[in-house]
Amino acid sequence: MPARSSQPDTPELGIGMVGYAFMGAAHSRAWATVAQVFDVPLRPRMAALAGRDGAAARAAAHRFGWRHAETDWRALINRDDVQLVDICTPGDTHAEIAIAALDAGKHVLCEKPLANTLAEAEAMAGAAARAARNGVRAMVGFNYRRVPAVALARRLIAEGRIGTLRHVRASYLQDWLADAAVPLTWRLQRERAGSGALGDIGAHAIDLAQYLSGEPLTGVSGLMTTFVTERSPAGASGGAEKAPVTVDDAALFTGRLPSGAVALFEATRFATGRKNALTIELNGELGSLAFDLERLNELSFYDRTESGTTAGFRRILVTEPDHPYLEAWWPPGHVLGWEHTFVNQARDLLTDIAAGSDPEPSFADGLQVQRVLAAVEHSAAHGSAWTKI
Amino acid sequence: MPARSSQPDTPELGIGMVGYAFMGAAHSRAWATVAQVFDVPLRPRMAALAGRDGAAARAAAHRFGWRHAETDWRALINRDDVQLVDICTPGDTHAEIAIAALDAGKHVLCEKPLANTLAEAEAMAGAAARAARNGVRAMVGFNYRRVPAVALARRLIAEGRIGTLRHVRASYLQDWLADAAVPLTWRLQRERAGSGALGDIGAHAIDLAQYLSGEPLTGVSGLMTTFVTERSPAGASGGAEKAPVTVDDAALFTGRLPSGAVALFEATRFATGRKNALTIELNGELGSLAFDLERLNELSFYDRTESGTTAGFRRILVTEPDHPYLEAWWPPGHVLGWEHTFVNQARDLLTDIAAGSDPEPSFADGLQVQRVLAAVEHSAAHGSAWTKI
Amino acid sequence: MPARSSQPDTPELGIGMVGYAFMGAAHSRAWATVAQVFDVPLRPRMAALAGRDGAAARAAAHRFGWRHAETDWRALINRDDVQLVDICTPGDTHAEIAIAALDAGKHVLCEKPLANTLAEAEAMAGAAARAARNGVRAMVGFNYRRVPAVALARRLIAEGRIGTLRHVRASYLQDWLADAAVPLTWRLQRERAGSGALGDIGAHAIDLAQYLSGEPLTGVSGLMTTFVTERSPAGASGGAEKAPVTVDDAALFTGRLPSGAVALFEATRFATGRKNALTIELNGELGSLAFDLERLNELSFYDRTESGTTAGFRRILVTEPDHPYLEAWWPPGHVLGWEHTFVNQARDLLTDIAAGSDPEPSFADGLQVQRVLAAVEHSAAHGSAWTKI
Amino acid sequence: MPARSSQPDTPELGIGMVGYAFMGAAHSRAWATVAQVFDVPLRPRMAALAGRDGAAARAAAHRFGWRHAETDWRALINRDDVQLVDICTPGDTHAEIAIAALDAGKHVLCEKPLANTLAEAEAMAGAAARAARNGVRAMVGFNYRRVPAVALARRLIAEGRIGTLRHVRASYLQDWLADAAVPLTWRLQRERAGSGALGDIGAHAIDLAQYLSGEPLTGVSGLMTTFVTERSPAGASGGAEKAPVTVDDAALFTGRLPSGAVALFEATRFATGRKNALTIELNGELGSLAFDLERLNELSFYDRTESGTTAGFRRILVTEPDHPYLEAWWPPGHVLGWEHTFVNQARDLLTDIAAGSDPEPSFADGLQVQRVLAAVEHSAAHGSAWTKI
Repeated sequence: MPARSSQPDTPELGIGMVGYAFMGAAHSRAWATVAQVFDVPLRPRMAALAGRDGAAARAAAHRFGWRHAETDWRALINRDDVQLVDICTPGDTHAEIAIAALDAGKHVLCEKPLANTLAEAEAMAGAAARAARNGVRAMVGFNYRRVPAVALARRLIAEGRIGTLRHVRASYLQDWLADAAVPLTWRLQRERAGSGALGDIGAHAIDLAQYLSGEPLTGVSGLMTTFVTERSPAGASGGAEKAPVTVDDAALFTGRLPSGAVALFEATRFATGRKNALTIELNGELGSLAFDLERLNELSFYDRTESGTTAGFRRILVTEPDHPYLEAWWPPGHVLGWEHTFVNQARDLLTDIAAGSDPEPSFADGLQVQRVLAAVEHSAAHGSAWTKI
Repeated sequence: MPARSSQPDTPELGIGMVGYAFMGAAHSRAWATVAQVFDVPLRPRMAALAGRDGAAARAAAHRFGWRHAETDWRALINRDDVQLVDICTPGDTHAEIAIAALDAGKHVLCEKPLANTLAEAEAMAGAAARAARNGVRAMVGFNYRRVPAVALARRLIAEGRIGTLRHVRASYLQDWLADAAVPLTWRLQRERAGSGALGDIGAHAIDLAQYLSGEPLTGVSGLMTTFVTERSPAGASGGAEKAPVTVDDAALFTGRLPSGAVALFEATRFATGRKNALTIELNGELGSLAFDLERLNELSFYDRTESGTTAGFRRILVTEPDHPYLEAWWPPGHVLGWEHTFVNQARDLLTDIAAGSDPEPSFADGLQVQRVLAAVEHSAAHGSAWTKI
Repeated sequence: MPARSSQPDTPELGIGMVGYAFMGAAHSRAWATVAQVFDVPLRPRMAALAGRDGAAARAAAHRFGWRHAETDWRALINRDDVQLVDICTPGDTHAEIAIAALDAGKHVLCEKPLANTLAEAEAMAGAAARAARNGVRAMVGFNYRRVPAVALARRLIAEGRIGTLRHVRASYLQDWLADAAVPLTWRLQRERAGSGALGDIGAHAIDLAQYLSGEPLTGVSGLMTTFVTERSPAGASGGAEKAPVTVDDAALFTGRLPSGAVALFEATRFATGRKNALTIELNGELGSLAFDLERLNELSFYDRTESGTTAGFRRILVTEPDHPYLEAWWPPGHVLGWEHTFVNQARDLLTDIAAGSDPEPSFADGLQVQRVLAAVEHSAAHGSAWTKI
Repeated sequence: MPARSSQPDTPELGIGMVGYAFMGAAHSRAWATVAQVFDVPLRPRMAALAGRDGAAARAAAHRFGWRHAETDWRALINRDDVQLVDICTPGDTHAEIAIAALDAGKHVLCEKPLANTLAEAEAMAGAAARAARNGVRAMVGFNYRRVPAVALARRLIAEGRIGTLRHVRASYLQDWLADAAVPLTWRLQRERAGSGALGDIGAHAIDLAQYLSGEPLTGVSGLMTTFVTERSPAGASGGAEKAPVTVDDAALFTGRLPSGAVALFEATRFATGRKNALTIELNGELGSLAFDLERLNELSFYDRTESGTTAGFRRILVTEPDHPYLEAWWPPGHVLGWEHTFVNQARDLLTDIAAGSDPEPSFADGLQVQRVLAAVEHSAAHGSAWTKI
């Protein structure tokens, strides 16, 4: 087992988290675990959690190991023992919290998508740029960049192993809305969620495509649809009137990259049987790479430079010591889980803060994803017309 | 083993084949084999083969078991011992041969795509409709409908096993052009091939999508690209000047079906490592089906009506006696090969001719595919604008 | 497409086949097809088929394309137009027919297993050795050596690509007896079938293990069992008395090879859900190979000499022109089926006969498999005691 | 997200851990995490860790979150704040520590295999039986029972979903010794490790086979081998003399279960390319189940009671809320990692202690595994002779 010590005198970094639902649980576990796994230069101190419902916030703090609970995120930002604000709330609150925290000189980790609107995202990117001049760091939580298989894919691409890129195809397929009886929640309401499948999960596919290719999308043509246009509100009795679904159930789009490569995207929560299938494949002149989040410890790699006699897609089990992040985890073949992407993310963020360098993905990266989302919506609303980004 | 007899007094049907390259070889094997495998009502008699080069045509006839060779397809059509004309030539000759044969009262099997232009395809469909009134049959060779796994998928969909359709995603990925040093051939010249990846392999994906869903595409938005814009002519020495590639290397498009389902397509010959990956997945409210031609004996099926505890994509090995076509082949687990799709196709065509019924896919089906191809090209030439079909 | 011509003046070789059931059908198709696919030096002429039931034999001959039918295999052997006798009958008749044919100067292709008893197999190997001195050839039909993926595995092993062999694990799993209601047939009766799963399918696993490793098993320890000890006779009404099953339903055994490698085997017809799963994996110091007959166009290869960062089991789609046998079939990605193994086998046999060389697997190879079968039975009958071969 | 609260007044249970290497790291993480994930009735308090090297023990305690460090395991046992002793040391120390702890009235969790010898295991089982009368609990750490897919398999088998069992085949394949240059460590020395692949990893395969089938093995026939008989000591310079490897590199064995089912086992650290492939398949009259630890979130299930038309092995993604343990983890499709098996194990142990019930696997279960290990070694030393258990 590789050494994974942290020295007793490792400095601490106080963390304050806003929100404590699904993402809050995942982030909490990451903050509690990162210094056990990695020899990080800063030891996170889980200072306080903020939530509007005091009792619930206190219970969550107890459960997840936070020292204090606040009911006002502004109070959290102002705490002296908080140096980093971790934003795990729905998208409509991101901008306000993040800008306030950055302006107060606190580092920020903000869940994706960066915001619900392009204007908000632009304001946030501006705040992050200002803060950076003062050594304050901002990162957007596209955690799938921290899947070791994805990071390995990026490394191989950067090394030229697949050559000139031709094709990207990325999709994020889930099925939890396939049943028309599933009730209406905030995720299906435009004013809270911003968009549906496109922003919720399509954003991940876009970020991975741009991260892995190393190129921004320059234009898109999109098609969006809502299969089930109204649903019963959550908790409503049988006779309750249905309310409209105001977001997309599925988004399909094509795109172009500066190198001449073309890209194909799909995001849906109606792909029956696909539970969490974020898949991406990249074909280059010299090779190809393919990944599926449902098998997150594996990367497929085809190397056209080897003899055609023995060429074939290899299933790389990404658990070797020299694979990204793996030097600190378990021996070969002992696989990681979904939540460990957040531990890896925390490692990178702490490392950057200690080193005084800007973490990735930056708010500018998040803004670029937001521009793609906006362009897809614009195109879909205009007969799939080609829309520049 | 099931009985597979053909009675001694089974009537014969004289076959005349035009072309003897890749498709000609596959069709020859099918005609030679079909009556051994299936108890067909008509026994095909391999009467004559036509090709412009007399010596080569005679050699091919000898090799593949044809009784005679002709150098003029018109002579072939006029032979008394030919009742069915099998067209295996490049697309630019399909219309002339097929219309002449139908007008001469000969049944026609025509390789896909039906034609190189919409006008030709319309003329052919018209000729087929006229001929049908006289009991003359026409079929277009979308052989992948005859993969047992595909036919099983169609049966399950027709039975309602996946419910209301939401998504179709179909792609045909090959990689034989990924290397920029591959020379220029007729398949890369618009005047001979009509189009590139779109018509050559994308046509199969379109036909499968429409066949399996049972719905025609009503509109598309397309994007096409040519990655390698010029190549050295085949057989040229190193210093030869390159000539332009005038077809698409890849085509990506979205589409809609009348039921409200959305569809996503991709055809390319630049997907490094993908050799013959015609894949299609359909997601419905009650279930999903997925197929990959590289594993042509398998069908994946997810049934949402069963308990969530044990639900999962099943790998059905489509080799059971009650699977389509399998009653006549081998015991369970003894897999079929690519060429056997042509044997199954020949069985269905002979059965329809004997029964006096119109075979599928008809020339009208071929024309519908052609309309989709034309719409994709139109959209791609107009900024991906939505194009009705 | 590669050239696949046979010259008009290619000499012919007259074939006579005994038996026309499952194996007879497969062999007939191979003799009819081989000269269309390969440019073979001898063109097989399907002279006559022999079967005890005259009407059935004539029908089979008509169906499969044999010129004549005989009711006595001795008459078949004596025909002037028969130079090769192809034995497709149950195992209890192999010895008598094969020895008579060889003694009559006819080449022999004999289905596996070579015989039902070790004594018979020894007599057959003796006859083959005598005949070889007169240029008469004998081959045993372990057709799975002719799966291109298996032949490629052999080539890679012979080239040293997996280094010193450590492990072989081979199994042949089917499930057609899992249901206790399946009736009793000759395959479950020792006097006809010789043994059960062991000889019927285990023989294939043994032959592949020895062929791929290039080493004979030197000893084994076996365990055999019969799960369903009596069954109703085929065609019997519900009240019919059951009769005993006198063969093994499953056989498991370990073994050693001269190099120090160890081997593990399993053969069963009770592996519910496994239809035709002949699987074999070989682990060497430098690499590993794995194969599954249910995916017969694929070979898995792990190469430990490449960087650990990108090492992984590759799925080689064995359809490239430089893969064994593939130069004569279809373009990459166009897969072969089970029956094509017999076409490849016929190619090799015809080539050897024309070249005057002894084909493989020889009757001596078949005898070696028989010795292993006998040793497994002996060990299983003596408390799994180690039994030398 | 399901509720995962622990009330503020949840009673605590003091944990003392002996050993802090590979297993110690995994157990530490489990104790730190279990109350965040599950609503457990006892909240573990990480009281103290023991290790002979004081500085290293203190560093590990700091890193992993233990309050105190001890250099003597006897002192750890005697601490008032320790109610449960968690033994993560090599096998040669298990018996002494476990018996002392149990006799001192402390609950014990002991890593597998239970001991290095049968005599030790018997003494431990005796101590556990005595302690149980006083409400003191003992559990052996066969953590793979806590893989959700494995627990689901057990549930399906217990419900009769695969019917009468016919076959078990289990193997544990790794490859970290395939390279003869890997140095000698304590794991390759009989006096420390007890045995090689057999006890280290084969023990897991045996436990799973017995757990899933619900039956103890009644006899075995074994074969063991050591491929590389001497290696250079760890840390030795190039010229150092090699020392003998005194354990098995691979063990293969067959076995029988009381129901009449037969079993096949293999354990090796020489299966090049297999990193952590603990695989098990069970075939019953009505269905089959298959599992592979390298894809630990998946279970394959074949149900013969459904129509043969749509039957096939299903890939169940074991991440649904009603799958074992999953009610407390993440939404469907968000996969777990290897280390989470220890969290699940801790949940079950805490629940049993609070409920006053005996946890499984018990020391008696560990002893039964030990008896199988001893029988395999005996058989291998006696010509694979059948050895009763």
